[in-house]
Amino acid sequence: MEGRDQELETLIQLMAKLPGLGPRSAPRAVLHLLKKRTQLLNPLAAAMERVARHVRFCEICGNIGTATPCDICSDPRRANGQVCVVEDVPDLWAIERTSAYRGRYHVLGGVLSILDGAGPDELRIPGLLQRVSETNVTEVILALGSTVEGQTTAHYIADELETTDVQVTSLARGVPMGGELNYLDDGTISTALHARKVL
Amino acid sequence: MEGRDQELETLIQLMAKLPGLGPRSAPRAVLHLLKKRTQLLNPLAAAMERVARHVRFCEICGNIGTATPCDICSDPRRANGQVCVVEDVPDLWAIERTSAYRGRYHVLGGVLSILDGAGPDELRIPGLLQRVSETNVTEVILALGSTVEGQTTAHYIADELETTDVQVTSLARGVPMGGELNYLDDGTISTALHARKVL
Repeated sequence: MEGRDQELETLIQLMAKLPGLGPRSAPRAVLHLLKKRTQLLNPLAAAMERVARHVRFCEICGNIGTATPCDICSDPRRANGQVCVVEDVPDLWAIERTSAYRGRYHVLGGVLSILDGAGPDELRIPGLLQRVSETNVTEVILALGSTVEGQTTAHYIADELETTDVQVTSLARGVPMGGELNYLDDGTISTALHARKVL
Repeated sequence: MEGRDQELETLIQLMAKLPGLGPRSAPRAVLHLLKKRTQLLNPLAAAMERVARHVRFCEICGNIGTATPCDICSDPRRANGQVCVVEDVPDLWAIERTSAYRGRYHVLGGVLSILDGAGPDELRIPGLLQRVSETNVTEVILALGSTVEGQTTAHYIADELETTDVQVTSLARGVPMGGELNYLDDGTISTALHARKVL
């Protein structure tokens, strides 16, 4: 207990389970909350309670939020024809941060993995195929990681969509911005070399 | 907004203000919460709400908790005669962790500092002097940091208590457990040398 009463101890132990915090930094974070009661503790308690009550997955795309359909699916200014397939919600956030994409999304909730036993039905792949067949999707952009699992998943989806007339694209591979050849892996260099472009 | 709705965004921005988290790791922490809704998000929201409603400072010692007097002040098994003076609540937690002390505490809420403008009345020093004069305290243990401000505060309190018959002690200074002389500062080595003991 370390001189703390039960309610504080419970809060500290729950906070310690957050990624980025831990048993050493959770007490410090809680103390900070207690010292900033009106500016931080009260609003944070209220925000967390609201999110705990309202959070849900968007029934169309799998994005997370407090409304379904989510803000992106219900935005009339976004293009219906493009669906960008991502592994998980942080990837969607990363793409939105760029402001470079104005279409819709489809969040798989993972990638195909033999080790984890995640098959197509564990992911939201059937929902994607249904969405493509039932709505006017013209392009499916596979924005999956450049890992074995990510690429397996991309190939699986591309195969499943082969019989439809939707265009399947994927993110370009190559040297990242600021990337120094000296520090890049062989795979990236050879991919970038094969996909070289005329200036 | 990065593709997140208002309630999620509010939660993320508040979480980013916690020490240990920040603008890069707060979204990850919130996503973790959302994925562990029943195990983590719901209990954490409830624990935070309870603490926000009940937390207070102990009117006797200044410890933080949900009851006043706090668990330590109201524990009949602890010695009333000893009062350990600490700068802040984490120091109290650190001492409690050792299980080496079974007396009472007095939390100052800071140390004397000319730069921060913290004088004796900003800290809980008047409360300490009153406590010593009105209750049967026999020893005041100054467990303050070995910094300029900590030592200034210790000397100030010792001076104020000089006219009383209470014994004023302070933590021993010397080589810490596992400390290698090679890596210790000169001040610690010379203090340890002056305070050397016969084996």
